[in-house]
Amino acid sequence: MTALTFAAAQTIVATAHDHARTQNLKPLAFVVLDAGGHLVAAGREDGATFFRTEIAKAKATCALGMGVDTAVTAERAKGNPTFYAGIVTTLGGDVVFSPGGVLIHDADGVVIGAVGVSGDTGEADAACANVGIKAAGLIGSN
Amino acid sequence: MTALTFAAAQTIVATAHDHARTQNLKPLAFVVLDAGGHLVAAGREDGATFFRTEIAKAKATCALGMGVDTAVTAERAKGNPTFYAGIVTTLGGDVVFSPGGVLIHDADGVVIGAVGVSGDTGEADAACANVGIKAAGLIGSN
Amino acid sequence: MTALTFAAAQTIVATAHDHARTQNLKPLAFVVLDAGGHLVAAGREDGATFFRTEIAKAKATCALGMGVDTAVTAERAKGNPTFYAGIVTTLGGDVVFSPGGVLIHDADGVVIGAVGVSGDTGEADAACANVGIKAAGLIGSN
Amino acid sequence: MTALTFAAAQTIVATAHDHARTQNLKPLAFVVLDAGGHLVAAGREDGATFFRTEIAKAKATCALGMGVDTAVTAERAKGNPTFYAGIVTTLGGDVVFSPGGVLIHDADGVVIGAVGVSGDTGEADAACANVGIKAAGLIGSN
Repeated sequence: MTALTFAAAQTIVATAHDHARTQNLKPLAFVVLDAGGHLVAAGREDGATFFRTEIAKAKATCALGMGVDTAVTAERAKGNPTFYAGIVTTLGGDVVFSPGGVLIHDADGVVIGAVGVSGDTGEADAACANVGIKAAGLIGSN
Repeated sequence: MTALTFAAAQTIVATAHDHARTQNLKPLAFVVLDAGGHLVAAGREDGATFFRTEIAKAKATCALGMGVDTAVTAERAKGNPTFYAGIVTTLGGDVVFSPGGVLIHDADGVVIGAVGVSGDTGEADAACANVGIKAAGLIGSN
Repeated sequence: MTALTFAAAQTIVATAHDHARTQNLKPLAFVVLDAGGHLVAAGREDGATFFRTEIAKAKATCALGMGVDTAVTAERAKGNPTFYAGIVTTLGGDVVFSPGGVLIHDADGVVIGAVGVSGDTGEADAACANVGIKAAGLIGSN
Repeated sequence: MTALTFAAAQTIVATAHDHARTQNLKPLAFVVLDAGGHLVAAGREDGATFFRTEIAKAKATCALGMGVDTAVTAERAKGNPTFYAGIVTTLGGDVVFSPGGVLIHDADGVVIGAVGVSGDTGEADAACANVGIKAAGLIGSN
C-alpha cells in the first residue's frame, strides 16, 4: 500500500483548482484525506463560502467510510431515503450523498485516500477531483 | 437474568465471522452490546470500511432501545418515514432502520444484549448475528 | 506497510485477556485500532465497567494521534498541565494521559495501529497490550 | 481590508513546508484561516500524526478569537491556569495555549486571518508560520 503523500495531496488541490478555473466553475473547496479519513491537504477558492469546506470534507469521508464514490451512494440513497437520511446522524454528519467524493487508489487498486470537492454541480465537482488525482499519478474513478 | 459474558461475546464475533467467510459475504463489522447498550466485543473484518463499525453498533443499540430487532423497525419505518427520520436525531444517531440488529435472549427469554452486523444485505447481516448468538448457547430471533 | 488484520487484532485481545487473568489483574477492556484510529477489535472482560472501553479507546487514539505511547505523553503532561488539560477538549476527549496506550509497529517499524487497555494500573494495562502485540507477531514498546 | 486569498494561503503552506524541511523540523501540520476563522488552506506533512492538524487549527482559531498570537496567550495562561483551563471547554476546544498560532495582517495592520502550525516546539512552529506569511507579502508577528 502506497501512502498518500503531502506532495501528492498538494498536487491534487493545485490541479483541481487550475481545472476549475479553466472551466469557469463556481468557486470550490477541495479536501484530500488519507485512508484513515484524516486531512492531508485542503484549499478553498476565493468566493467559495465557508460551508463548502465542510461539505467537501464530508464527501471525501463518505467515500472512504462507505467504500464507494459518493456518486454511487447518491444513487443508492434515492431508493432508500429513510435509511440514508438516518445514517447521516448516525455517522455524525460525515456523509454527503452527492457526487464529488472520489476514492484515490494506488497502482495496485488499493484505496489510499479520497478527495472531496464542493461548489459547482456534483458532476463538475467529481470531474475536478479526478483531474487532480490523475495529475498526482494516482487512480480515481475513471 | 444471565449476564452476557466476555466469552460468549467473543464466541459470537468469531462464529459470525466464520459464517460470513463460509458464505463469501462482503466484509463485515460485528458489535456485541450488553443489556445496558455497552460494548462487550467487536471486530471489523479485513476490507470492511470504518463506517461499518458505527452502523453495526447503531443497529445493536437500536434493537435494545426499541425492544425489537431492527428488521421489525425497518418495516415500521416504511409506513411512517417522517417520524422515524426525526427520532434518529432525537436518539443521537444510535438507531439504524435496516435488518442486522438482533436481540440476545437467555434461556428464560430475557433480553441480555444485542448484536449488530453491517456490510452485506441487512438479511445476510442478521443471519450472521443469529448464527453467532446460537453458537454461544443463547437465543436470537429464530 | 503491513495492514493490521482482523486476525491479528483478535489475537491481541485474546492474548491480553489470557495474560490479565493469569496475573489476576482487575477486569479490563481492550481496544485495537488501525493506523487511522478506527476499531478493528475490542473486548470488555466480565466485571469491567462500561467506561473502561471508552478509556481504552482514548488511550489507543492518543498514542496514534500523538505518535508515542501514552506512557510518554503521561510524563510530558506532568510538566505542562495547562496545555495538556486543554487539548483534551481540543481533541474531543480522544486522549488519556496514562500508560496503557501502546503503538503497534510492523517489522519495518511502521506504525500500523495501537492497543488501548484500561482497568488496572497504567503499567499493568500497558504490559497486557505488549503481550498481546507480541503474540500477534508485531512490535509494541518493548 | 484585504481578503486572504487562496493563492496567498497556498503560498503560506508551501513556504512554511519548505522552511520546515530546510530546518529539519519534525513533521508539521499547517492550517490557514480567514478572519472569520474558516479554512482557506491546510496541509499535513508526511509523518505528522493526525492530531497535528487539529492542534494547528485550534492555534490559528485561538489567535483570531483572542486577538493575539498564541505565544502571548501561552504566557498569560501560566499566571492564571484555572481560568485558561476552563475556557478551553467554554470555547469548544478551539484554543491551544502554545506558540504557533500567528495572526496575519495586511499592509494597513488589519487582521485578515491566522496561521496555525503544530509538530515541533511552539517557537519553531511559530517561526514557520511567520516565514510563510512574509512570503505571501503579508505581515505576521515580526
